[in-house]
Amino acid sequence: MSWETYLDREQARFVDELLDFIRIPSVSAKPDNIPDVQRAAEWVAARLTAAGADHAQVMPTAGHPVVCADWLHAGPDKPTILIYGHFDVQPAEPFDLWSSPPFQPEIRDGRVWGRGASDDKGGMLVPILAVEALMKTTGRLPVNVKFFFEGQEEIGSPDLPPFVAANADRLKADMIFSADGLQWSPDQPMLVDALKGLVSLEIVVRAARSDLHSGLHGGGIANPAMALGHVLAGLKAADGRISVQGFYDDVIPLTDEVRASIARIPFDEAAYLAETGAPAPFGEPGYSTRERLWGRPTLDVNGLTSGWQGAGTKTVLPAEARAKITCRLVAAQSPERVFELIRAHVMAHTPQGVTVEVLQNPGRADPYLVPTGHNATAIAAQVLEEVYGTPPYRTRLGGSIPVMTTLLDVLGVHAVMFGFSHDDENLHAPDEFFRLDAFRRGQTAYARLLERLGRP
Amino acid sequence: MSWETYLDREQARFVDELLDFIRIPSVSAKPDNIPDVQRAAEWVAARLTAAGADHAQVMPTAGHPVVCADWLHAGPDKPTILIYGHFDVQPAEPFDLWSSPPFQPEIRDGRVWGRGASDDKGGMLVPILAVEALMKTTGRLPVNVKFFFEGQEEIGSPDLPPFVAANADRLKADMIFSADGLQWSPDQPMLVDALKGLVSLEIVVRAARSDLHSGLHGGGIANPAMALGHVLAGLKAADGRISVQGFYDDVIPLTDEVRASIARIPFDEAAYLAETGAPAPFGEPGYSTRERLWGRPTLDVNGLTSGWQGAGTKTVLPAEARAKITCRLVAAQSPERVFELIRAHVMAHTPQGVTVEVLQNPGRADPYLVPTGHNATAIAAQVLEEVYGTPPYRTRLGGSIPVMTTLLDVLGVHAVMFGFSHDDENLHAPDEFFRLDAFRRGQTAYARLLERLGRP
Repeated sequence: MSWETYLDREQARFVDELLDFIRIPSVSAKPDNIPDVQRAAEWVAARLTAAGADHAQVMPTAGHPVVCADWLHAGPDKPTILIYGHFDVQPAEPFDLWSSPPFQPEIRDGRVWGRGASDDKGGMLVPILAVEALMKTTGRLPVNVKFFFEGQEEIGSPDLPPFVAANADRLKADMIFSADGLQWSPDQPMLVDALKGLVSLEIVVRAARSDLHSGLHGGGIANPAMALGHVLAGLKAADGRISVQGFYDDVIPLTDEVRASIARIPFDEAAYLAETGAPAPFGEPGYSTRERLWGRPTLDVNGLTSGWQGAGTKTVLPAEARAKITCRLVAAQSPERVFELIRAHVMAHTPQGVTVEVLQNPGRADPYLVPTGHNATAIAAQVLEEVYGTPPYRTRLGGSIPVMTTLLDVLGVHAVMFGFSHDDENLHAPDEFFRLDAFRRGQTAYARLLERLGRP
Repeated sequence: MSWETYLDREQARFVDELLDFIRIPSVSAKPDNIPDVQRAAEWVAARLTAAGADHAQVMPTAGHPVVCADWLHAGPDKPTILIYGHFDVQPAEPFDLWSSPPFQPEIRDGRVWGRGASDDKGGMLVPILAVEALMKTTGRLPVNVKFFFEGQEEIGSPDLPPFVAANADRLKADMIFSADGLQWSPDQPMLVDALKGLVSLEIVVRAARSDLHSGLHGGGIANPAMALGHVLAGLKAADGRISVQGFYDDVIPLTDEVRASIARIPFDEAAYLAETGAPAPFGEPGYSTRERLWGRPTLDVNGLTSGWQGAGTKTVLPAEARAKITCRLVAAQSPERVFELIRAHVMAHTPQGVTVEVLQNPGRADPYLVPTGHNATAIAAQVLEEVYGTPPYRTRLGGSIPVMTTLLDVLGVHAVMFGFSHDDENLHAPDEFFRLDAFRRGQTAYARLLERLGRP
């Protein structure tokens, strides 16, 4: 029997197993659910063993556990593949906005409805089922496989970097595939070539020791909120280009090839404006809106605070004004270097009559860029084209996914996002669902991927 | 017996009466004290009658009452003088910061300690006592006198403009003196030549419909907080000069004479910086710090609000950013015209990718400038020089006193601030006090003022 036939034959059972998995409310953010996250880990370990994996093991961290397993009998001439995913889920509140209870999953309209169906229980089950199909029909796998599933992705994986560092040998692999990922649409695959990095900072402008009466002191000393306006205006020109000296120095330019590949992907600017409600697109001159969103670094004010913020008028001369700022970075910018550049720029342009401090805030991520010609990505692209009948879009994301950089930092491998969710599936919202045809297609894609990786 | 001897002989009784007056907790801001404000009004009316005034009457308003009285027998060839003051007081909380209970006044170190001792119960009692001394010793007054005392000054006199308008005939006078006022120091008198006006507004910058993920949308559309920085920087140049087109057009320039008279008044810039805690003075170029504080219009940001203001990092692209702004105006600027100028300026310089709205906030005041050669001011200056042995400083205040402009608007008369408090007397704070020697000297000053005004 072919693995494809096996997958077809067992699909009803697989869907039932997915429903069982969703019934475990493994909400990593809620202390009450700590035992449920543990229970989900044990479910995953048992499922891996049932699929034919060896050494399936729930491993402790300082927080929620990790599950590891492997099958390493393909031989030393075959590559070793690490597959990543997560079994924890977002909180389901508010429950009353769900059409069916989040932890009592239902099937309607060819979709599984429930918390975690798409993010990432359905997703992470897919490669386990592909491995089972290969094991049950061929008795082996075409490559050496390691599984690495975590239970704290939805709270930012705080214990993952030390865990990965401490278990680097166990996790070591030639290629990494993340089963936590999206496709462009049910008919259109995609591969993510880059993620942006992040640096977070705060600018604090001060003048008087305390808030003062604007009638008694206005005109005598500087106004920190006005001075902050000048500081902000000095960071980004009116045309949207970031003015911080040296900010763009380390940016790897978008090549004509990359720009052409981005331009091939449909982008409906009117729909984008309708979605966001913004009156116009805006940003760095010389780039399309999508190029800016995907491929260029940004500097955004996340918050402002100063003086009186209640209703009406309070004639106060504020003592202090603060702006929170994050920059989204692209390769090869460094969060630390960009922070220093901004600090130096602000210090070199401090307005008269105030003192200015630039503080680093928590949250940093290195930008992530899959190198040109990256083998695992090229193979994933071929498999997606075969399975979907059309080549994948090569996309970039403006957000950061810390686990991708953690794996790169410690293991030295660029992971490939190879997941089958879609961004319309209410991830992190009520009425989360997962498409059953994507669940099935993902299994084929993973089985083909492993086969292809095992070919000489 | 001279009125001076009468004042000396009765001083102990007058101080006892001031203590009685302070014992009435006439806190206009607190609903519980409404009966106390009424009781204070009745106390004042009775005290006016005892002093020899006619028609002393507690008159209702929509809120706290007003007390009016008069003595109009000096003859038609004599001027009519209106004397203003207020019998309501600030709340006294926190009580535990007072050295003695705020409504159980004590005399220590030649001072009366208690809420309202300086602002304005001691102050408004002064002209009543001067009138009593003149009446008891001469049987008459040198001029026609009207009294106008209110019970809602500490809550912004909300019902005063309609009251003054409805009673304009009754309040009509040739000159107005306010017994709610300060002297420079116990040894140095002053006269206030100008008060600043006020206009209050809010700038609202918007882009997206709601807060968005800065990773998904940063670089795609404009950031309203950054755009607000550009708007603010466009309102005031880095050197402190207001850039709003036409802003200074209606400003009456400071003459060399006025600048010289300001320069004669000692100003310790180092002490001012130590007091405020600001690192340096700052403001419009070409003017001294005191000229800016007293004689030039200002534009101050009173508050900023946008996006995430809590601790740490939130990677949000805010939907909206707001700045609250007040301008302090000088003669002959108009609050309405300045608002329109700012609105037009902001609209003409709206940053790309956002919408901007400029809203007027509550709170407006016309600037107040005593005309050169103003007769009542000249006479007040002579009296102060006689009583203190040194000519008064001619000062200006950065704040607004709405009753001054209300009286000017309705009665067409520039009031003279002729009060004997000092700004170190903890007005509006715990341990308010009034100097007994100033209380006594003020009585002489008012008696002399009335005499001088009655001379042909």
